[in-house]
Amino acid sequence: MYYYNSWDSDFKRPFGAIQVGQIMKVNLKTDKENVTVKFIIRRDFGARSEFDMQKLDRGLFSSSVKFDVGQGLYYYYFEINEPTDWGIKKFYYGCSGLGGEGVLYMNENDVRPYQATVFSAEDAAPEWYRQAVFYQIFPDRFHNGNSDGKINHPKPNSFIYATKEDTPLYIRDEKGDVIRWDFFGGNLRGIIEKIPYLKALGITALYLNPIFSASSNHRYDTNDYLQIDSMLGTEEDFQELVDLLHKEDMHIILDGVFSHVGKNSRYFNLSGQYGSDVGAAKSIDSPYMDWFKFTEYPMDYKSWWGIKDLPEVDKDNPSFRNFIYGETDSVLAKWNQLGVDGWRLDVADELPDSFIRGIRKNLSRYPDTVLIGEVWEDASNKISYGKRRDYILGHSLHGVMNYPFREMIIAYLTSTRSAQDIAYQMMVLNENYPQDIFYNNLNNLGTHDTERILTMVGDEANDLAVGMLFTLPGVPCVYYGDEAGLTGRKDPKNRKYFPWKNIHAPTHTLYQEWIAKRRTEKSLYRGKFVPFYHEDVLGILRYTESEAFVYMVNPTEVEVTIDFEAIHFLQKVEFRDLLKSYLDKCVLSAKSGQDFKIVKVKNKI
Amino acid sequence: MYYYNSWDSDFKRPFGAIQVGQIMKVNLKTDKENVTVKFIIRRDFGARSEFDMQKLDRGLFSSSVKFDVGQGLYYYYFEINEPTDWGIKKFYYGCSGLGGEGVLYMNENDVRPYQATVFSAEDAAPEWYRQAVFYQIFPDRFHNGNSDGKINHPKPNSFIYATKEDTPLYIRDEKGDVIRWDFFGGNLRGIIEKIPYLKALGITALYLNPIFSASSNHRYDTNDYLQIDSMLGTEEDFQELVDLLHKEDMHIILDGVFSHVGKNSRYFNLSGQYGSDVGAAKSIDSPYMDWFKFTEYPMDYKSWWGIKDLPEVDKDNPSFRNFIYGETDSVLAKWNQLGVDGWRLDVADELPDSFIRGIRKNLSRYPDTVLIGEVWEDASNKISYGKRRDYILGHSLHGVMNYPFREMIIAYLTSTRSAQDIAYQMMVLNENYPQDIFYNNLNNLGTHDTERILTMVGDEANDLAVGMLFTLPGVPCVYYGDEAGLTGRKDPKNRKYFPWKNIHAPTHTLYQEWIAKRRTEKSLYRGKFVPFYHEDVLGILRYTESEAFVYMVNPTEVEVTIDFEAIHFLQKVEFRDLLKSYLDKCVLSAKSGQDFKIVKVKNKI
Repeated sequence: MYYYNSWDSDFKRPFGAIQVGQIMKVNLKTDKENVTVKFIIRRDFGARSEFDMQKLDRGLFSSSVKFDVGQGLYYYYFEINEPTDWGIKKFYYGCSGLGGEGVLYMNENDVRPYQATVFSAEDAAPEWYRQAVFYQIFPDRFHNGNSDGKINHPKPNSFIYATKEDTPLYIRDEKGDVIRWDFFGGNLRGIIEKIPYLKALGITALYLNPIFSASSNHRYDTNDYLQIDSMLGTEEDFQELVDLLHKEDMHIILDGVFSHVGKNSRYFNLSGQYGSDVGAAKSIDSPYMDWFKFTEYPMDYKSWWGIKDLPEVDKDNPSFRNFIYGETDSVLAKWNQLGVDGWRLDVADELPDSFIRGIRKNLSRYPDTVLIGEVWEDASNKISYGKRRDYILGHSLHGVMNYPFREMIIAYLTSTRSAQDIAYQMMVLNENYPQDIFYNNLNNLGTHDTERILTMVGDEANDLAVGMLFTLPGVPCVYYGDEAGLTGRKDPKNRKYFPWKNIHAPTHTLYQEWIAKRRTEKSLYRGKFVPFYHEDVLGILRYTESEAFVYMVNPTEVEVTIDFEAIHFLQKVEFRDLLKSYLDKCVLSAKSGQDFKIVKVKNKI
Repeated sequence: MYYYNSWDSDFKRPFGAIQVGQIMKVNLKTDKENVTVKFIIRRDFGARSEFDMQKLDRGLFSSSVKFDVGQGLYYYYFEINEPTDWGIKKFYYGCSGLGGEGVLYMNENDVRPYQATVFSAEDAAPEWYRQAVFYQIFPDRFHNGNSDGKINHPKPNSFIYATKEDTPLYIRDEKGDVIRWDFFGGNLRGIIEKIPYLKALGITALYLNPIFSASSNHRYDTNDYLQIDSMLGTEEDFQELVDLLHKEDMHIILDGVFSHVGKNSRYFNLSGQYGSDVGAAKSIDSPYMDWFKFTEYPMDYKSWWGIKDLPEVDKDNPSFRNFIYGETDSVLAKWNQLGVDGWRLDVADELPDSFIRGIRKNLSRYPDTVLIGEVWEDASNKISYGKRRDYILGHSLHGVMNYPFREMIIAYLTSTRSAQDIAYQMMVLNENYPQDIFYNNLNNLGTHDTERILTMVGDEANDLAVGMLFTLPGVPCVYYGDEAGLTGRKDPKNRKYFPWKNIHAPTHTLYQEWIAKRRTEKSLYRGKFVPFYHEDVLGILRYTESEAFVYMVNPTEVEVTIDFEAIHFLQKVEFRDLLKSYLDKCVLSAKSGQDFKIVKVKNKI
């Protein structure tokens, strides 16, 4: 009786998020006579506006609304007024929860509205980034570049693993607190030494977990933002690494950890290792005193998630802001001038929107740098600490770490969720994010904070996960060692040392081949995205004007023959005939994937 | 009215323990007329015998009993029959609990008897041992002799301390079980390299904690009794160490850990590291199957104190006995032939008497070897697992680790117990042990199983503890690092790495000087022992026929002037006039000790 589909250009234009000032046009179709329809828009935490829809022929009601009242989230649905024998009845057409086609509601309170993300500015990441294949390195665990195997400046009261094959372990007391840190001793010279390895793998950019002076092995407890951790090497080593990467046309981004510092940092200095007259915990005259919030000086203070190792910084403090992202003499200025190509912001949820915009503003002085945030959910509608965040609305992040894609891949390959379900959810992300952001997101199959993909999906499905990583929209990032066959559940098992003497050759080849495809196939790094499904088979279609790339996955234990007519594409596709010729009757054996390249120009495949 | 004193030669001869076949003569004195006295002897867990005592003049009753009914413990006291107006009344004269003078009891059931230890054979340790100054080394924590500082063969899944100054730490899981071992990487070449250091300190013999192949850093979980642990070095390194020590006229004893093995040992092989066809836990056809007691094969088995890392061995098993101490091809044969000078038996309480005698028998083939047992209490009357032990009755141990002396020293220097109390208790040990054993015991101020002495008594009293260690009867053993000023409570804090760069010079000099005295003063290594006290001052008198050495300790915060007449000597001394000339009016300042050498020959001091 009523129909609307937010993914269908016959019903909504433009697709997805809308830029401030743009006109959104929606059509609702009905076979009912005599009804009137209103287009209802609610602002996020704000007022309800209604727009009468114009009745066209063929049962269409239409409305065009210019979104020029500010960026942010908007929610919309349709109010239908249907005259009956006994007065006018109201119905509502809203979202089912997963975008696309909607459903009819009898009561306005029950309506799940469609989300319209209204962003302020286009924000395509630098071209090198969009074409990049990233590699994430947890520096302590990658490679020790000292020829004699010595560890640089071991930290007092820490442990060194006896062998590189040891399984990582947290050393805790009976309360569960980490009481001593464990190191393998990877360092910057080790990364330098392995540039040829990374290049041969096809990697074009590195994302390094923190490298500044710290107490722990993960170095998220920064002690000095202006110093390379002495176990990792020197500033000269780092400069050499950056220069060598650039010489190889490779890029590097760093982990920016600005929410908290280490309790023994130069700024807090609880243990006094930075002398007695600096550090907020050592003197109330400390220049850093205002950065922290003490509940009882000096032993009780606000800390990240209550972890006393990590005193929280007041990110609204002007002196801290200036120290981190001031135009000159700031942390960002120092490392950007040295040549880093961007930053991944740790725990972006803990950083005020204006703080992130300040960082982005600093970066804007350095051409071709990129800013990615650690946000675990759909960043378009994330609320943190009671506040809707504007991460992706412009002048803020280029993109976020795409953990939702990872979760979908794993849920699908472990048969926890259906192909249909995954295809729908991917489209929701596609719709909610501004298109630039969606394609800027940094995709992964795992990071230092998650289980390794091989452990999550097993040997056979691992191949399929890798295929998905390199065909899905966004920038793929390989977690060090995944290509070597490393396994492991969560931290610390996901932080084993790179198995240089025991690289699993088939897995390595798999990555190498997919990386090569990703870098050569234009549709994979520039193409639009339409997911499709056919029973249990999920398909990823990427296409440009002239060509397309298709990856289909059969995660089941049985062979599947594709019937093209039974395929559900989540958006209209322009290549139907060509696609049919490739996909119809295509046979996918059990636990397998297949990829096709399709070229529109005649006689050329 | 009645008097007897087991320490006074007027009342008992010989002093102390009695050899089988020897006659013990006891006198009881009384001023009562018409009484008769019986000498009552009870065998340990055995029958009561009574002997009528002969009435001599001067109110003395006397009895001489030949102890030719077997070795063991005997208990004695006196039954007094006193005629009254209304029948004969019985009184009993027995021990007060601390030897020496006794007390009168009204009821036989209440009597605390005197102990008479009856031993089968004299058992003087080898002369090198009696004159030795020992040094106990916990091998992982002493010195790494590799010039590049590398660790030999680090064990998979273990940790290496980042710096030599790190504080040792157990790595445990939430149940408190050790889940990974921690190493500093000391080794045999390190000991070899430090022989000149030890020689300069005055050390003449080493006691090494276990050095055979094992999983842990303490190596009490033996994996292979016939292999030097590869982290410590090779058999060639050990041979070199033994040869070099002997060349320097030094000796070495090893830690014999025969009660249990490591769960991953060659003999048990739970993890399979020794292949699949050997080890009791891997195959019921294992040649070692009968060594262990499985309650449910292979996962549940009898283990030392329930610690599953340490499967307990059946020490009554003939094949195990033969393996450990068989005449040839045994563990003892191998290392004795290689030149070790003796053994310290770990957890002697867990080893059957006959097992220890078997070990001693093996050692008897190697001249000048010594056998010391780990027994924490008075070994003369120790009961373990419901059985009275014969450790010190002959053909068994030469002596035991003298933990009671350590406890007395600490209790005295921390003013927990009085000088009188300590003097009495020392005499009880003197009395209970056969004299050879008493002088064979290996004295310590601390070991790998106790708090460090400096931590227990503090800076000032540490000097006094050291003086006591080197003047008390028995063989002194310095726990590595005590002479360097190491501190630490119990395991693992008592197992810090030797502070080679930070040796506390005054402490080192203190040890060096006392060791020199101990080695040059005959009365200190050969002299008899009489303790004395004067208020809070404790005195240690050691004497030979021709000379004496006195050490007096004032542990209090005030100066003490000695009044010779007020001194309580616990036994008659022959040197009274000479002693008086040295001790009378002697002033001991607060927290200090004073030592004197006294020579009997006229005009020679």
